[in-house]
Amino acid sequence: MCAQNIYDDAGFYAGYAKLPRSEEGLRAVYEWPAFQRLLPASLEGARVLDLGCGFGAYAREMRARGAASVLAVDLSERMLEEARARSSDDAITYVRASLEEFEPERRAYDLVLSTLTLHYLPDVAPLFRRVAAALVPGGRFAFSVEHPIYTAAGLGWQTAPDGTIQHWPVDRYRDEGERRTRWFVEGVVKYHRTIETYVNALIAAGLSIARLEEPETTEEVLAEHPAWREDRRRPAFLLIAADAPRG
Amino acid sequence: MCAQNIYDDAGFYAGYAKLPRSEEGLRAVYEWPAFQRLLPASLEGARVLDLGCGFGAYAREMRARGAASVLAVDLSERMLEEARARSSDDAITYVRASLEEFEPERRAYDLVLSTLTLHYLPDVAPLFRRVAAALVPGGRFAFSVEHPIYTAAGLGWQTAPDGTIQHWPVDRYRDEGERRTRWFVEGVVKYHRTIETYVNALIAAGLSIARLEEPETTEEVLAEHPAWREDRRRPAFLLIAADAPRG
Repeated sequence: MCAQNIYDDAGFYAGYAKLPRSEEGLRAVYEWPAFQRLLPASLEGARVLDLGCGFGAYAREMRARGAASVLAVDLSERMLEEARARSSDDAITYVRASLEEFEPERRAYDLVLSTLTLHYLPDVAPLFRRVAAALVPGGRFAFSVEHPIYTAAGLGWQTAPDGTIQHWPVDRYRDEGERRTRWFVEGVVKYHRTIETYVNALIAAGLSIARLEEPETTEEVLAEHPAWREDRRRPAFLLIAADAPRG
Repeated sequence: MCAQNIYDDAGFYAGYAKLPRSEEGLRAVYEWPAFQRLLPASLEGARVLDLGCGFGAYAREMRARGAASVLAVDLSERMLEEARARSSDDAITYVRASLEEFEPERRAYDLVLSTLTLHYLPDVAPLFRRVAAALVPGGRFAFSVEHPIYTAAGLGWQTAPDGTIQHWPVDRYRDEGERRTRWFVEGVVKYHRTIETYVNALIAAGLSIARLEEPETTEEVLAEHPAWREDRRRPAFLLIAADAPRG
């Protein structure tokens, strides 16, 4: 099995590029307020690795917060082109690579982050081991994924005949693996995993869980995107921070 | 708010006492195979604290595995009476107390366990702090609760007109607090909490997450209770092990 590179599909890319998060940057990202709680207190001088950088919004934000350098990796050539076009910062290096094969330098990063990317990978355990090896002692891994509650059944909100949302359906929770959904185009492949798998794979890689979030967003974000209020009814995203041992 | 003592309600007790887990002990407990993975490698000589001991099945099992002593706490006088009747082991001490007020001895226990009890408490953070203080360095806290996916909406399986199970409804996930359900009697009060709250409260108490389980059960258990196979479709239980720092 190999991760799908849906982002280089022209139809998908056209849709994705018009998302609020793509056009407006981090202030239009539902889970950004929560993701900030996963970041180290200071990024001053930090060496950062961004796994699945997309248009580079997180990479640029880490630089704005004082990071010394960011290595930003993505599988999609289109995404990297757009990321490069959005910033001419020489301290951000963009690399095209598959996260299933990418071997980061060992003990080289204070922070490894990955945003809404890992649910495209069939297996996270090998990557978590490489991330753990890439962190300096006490370094942090912070990531967001689609929440297992969100991905389990592969269905959407259940609605009444008048269109009112009733509840979110969960099914096949223990059946980890491929889920095909329509997202701009048909057949987008994501991988459902349990929270158990994410947490225990981090621990097995030698990392210690520092924080877990199943966030709602802020009133500030909801003011611009009122429909996102429904996301309080079931978590759309799972965010975890985990730390490498201190020496 | 105060935890409800439903177990001393005669109608509830009569129903509860007839559950497989009440009559047959741990071999009829859905999550027991998973709970064992949370236990320390050896219980030889261990001092154990059981918070919400019920009929004492876990307390007796810990003794059978070599624990030196078990302090078994429960709010229900009926449960404690039955627990005492089921065992005459002098190394198990039964104490009636509310977990909201119970102050265990500090640095006195190698293992604190709690099975399907904490979802009766309005707040777990104060208890987690007392548990952390009660553990010896490197000691372990292992607990099971009803899974937040299970408790969120307070509804049951959604079924087709022919009775076929369609999916499990999730709703109100971020609305932590009281859920009133019918379980043998009307108005049984449990408290829904997110996984985020459980995990972050453990970390805030100074414990490190050692393992998280959203278990299915084993074929062996399913052979006796075939209806439990549906529980694979959404997790009914959440199990977490967390460790006190090593000195």
